[in-house]
Amino acid sequence: MKIITTIKELQSELAIQKKSGKTVGFVPTMGYLHEGHLTLIKHARHENDLVVLSIFVNPIQFGPKEDLSTYPRDFERDRALAECENVDYLFYPSVEEMYPNKITVQAAVQQRTDVLCGKSRPGHFDGVATVITKLFNIVMPTKAYFGKKDAQQVAVIDGVIADFNFPIELVAVDTVRESDGLAKSSRNVNLQPEERKQAPVLFKSLKAAKAAINQGERNPDNIVSAIKEMISKESNGYIDYVEIYSYPELQPVERISGRVIIALAVKFTKVRLIDNLVINLDLEED
Amino acid sequence: MKIITTIKELQSELAIQKKSGKTVGFVPTMGYLHEGHLTLIKHARHENDLVVLSIFVNPIQFGPKEDLSTYPRDFERDRALAECENVDYLFYPSVEEMYPNKITVQAAVQQRTDVLCGKSRPGHFDGVATVITKLFNIVMPTKAYFGKKDAQQVAVIDGVIADFNFPIELVAVDTVRESDGLAKSSRNVNLQPEERKQAPVLFKSLKAAKAAINQGERNPDNIVSAIKEMISKESNGYIDYVEIYSYPELQPVERISGRVIIALAVKFTKVRLIDNLVINLDLEED
Repeated sequence: MKIITTIKELQSELAIQKKSGKTVGFVPTMGYLHEGHLTLIKHARHENDLVVLSIFVNPIQFGPKEDLSTYPRDFERDRALAECENVDYLFYPSVEEMYPNKITVQAAVQQRTDVLCGKSRPGHFDGVATVITKLFNIVMPTKAYFGKKDAQQVAVIDGVIADFNFPIELVAVDTVRESDGLAKSSRNVNLQPEERKQAPVLFKSLKAAKAAINQGERNPDNIVSAIKEMISKESNGYIDYVEIYSYPELQPVERISGRVIIALAVKFTKVRLIDNLVINLDLEED
Repeated sequence: MKIITTIKELQSELAIQKKSGKTVGFVPTMGYLHEGHLTLIKHARHENDLVVLSIFVNPIQFGPKEDLSTYPRDFERDRALAECENVDYLFYPSVEEMYPNKITVQAAVQQRTDVLCGKSRPGHFDGVATVITKLFNIVMPTKAYFGKKDAQQVAVIDGVIADFNFPIELVAVDTVRESDGLAKSSRNVNLQPEERKQAPVLFKSLKAAKAAINQGERNPDNIVSAIKEMISKESNGYIDYVEIYSYPELQPVERISGRVIIALAVKFTKVRLIDNLVINLDLEED
């Protein structure tokens, strides 16, 4: 595995490799790798000749009051994990390398952002779309891998690829969970011990919602209320949102039908967790 | 020369060509080709293995009151001219091909747009930056060619390439002029006969400004006043702006020094013309 810190070096390395027709799988991350990331890497490893992993805590996707400074980092551990997964190139640029000057142009997301996390994180998805545009141009991968846990991010990046005509295939991979159902996240380490015990209620409430839908419930308000009630009862977390939309369009629904996402965000003392379930009434669950 | 109308076909054609290591020169245009464009194509032809010319009147860079519907078009003439210049691929997509759905993500220009044409054309450079991002991803050229006449466009695209990390070299080519000094433009055909006779005063006033600077004038206000006076006297055009900035940063200057752009826009009955001169006091004129 080669660790590369400059854009120029990565571009020239990959240019040589691509000349021989090799395919490139790309896993962009903010580091502090967990099993969810490793699953993305395994998929990329299986489906491509080369695997590029990027670790970059992108400052422009954090709001002024968000957790940029406390976002967990452990490069040595990440490096070792990436090596174990047979990553070919670990791209680890500095903030100065990625943003050397005042920003002249950025990607602005016009749709799919006024709901869910986008509503409470203004500018967040512009920051995501901008860094992804940069990383796509630096790596020029064949396929790029993202976790379904960040469902709104997947919807936004789907838009970036389509609208900017990137010749890249987006691969969305199932959420990896702890044995008690908590979605794996780098932020989970910032949960206090008591909160860690409560946090599985997020997924538990989503599963209960799914069960209710399977039993015929079609009213989104009833489902949202039941989820809120369960989370309030079984945790000290503050519910940021519980919402139901069509997916991936993220439009409001009056009645559960077709493909919908039930998504939620809950704030604990030092960390805000998200989770979601996509339910397809036409077919089986995604 | 191959005429291609779909993104998919162009991408797969170019992918095959690039595998053999060929370089690609790209000339993006809105068609109605004039000598300025042909000069860009000649440069591209000289410096690359393949030349891609695109013709696409990009609706999202026109404001609601602008000349999208009257923008001149003549595909058969353009096709013949491109053939004469040995273009390899003429990319001629429909609006539906380029914008099949409601736009989810666009490029938003944060700098260099609140002056000159950007001021009177809100959203114009977002539209330019968006279509260029799309076209760059579709063509993935080695070098891209633009005319210095659209100096602010060159500054914005310089920002797109730098901030989005496109591995593309921007080549800015000198403005081509009629024998009387009028900068070549597709829009010149929309001048009324009397206006066509007056229009050379734009460049004449810029040359007079340059002469004044050469004789020691350093006050931008004096230069702007002299230009406005000359244009008002010798034409019926309405002066949209005459401005002087540092280049390419496009910041105001209190005194002429270093590298500056003198830029102007004048509205005639059916057409608004622009012109500029970049003057480098440290070296010779650019």
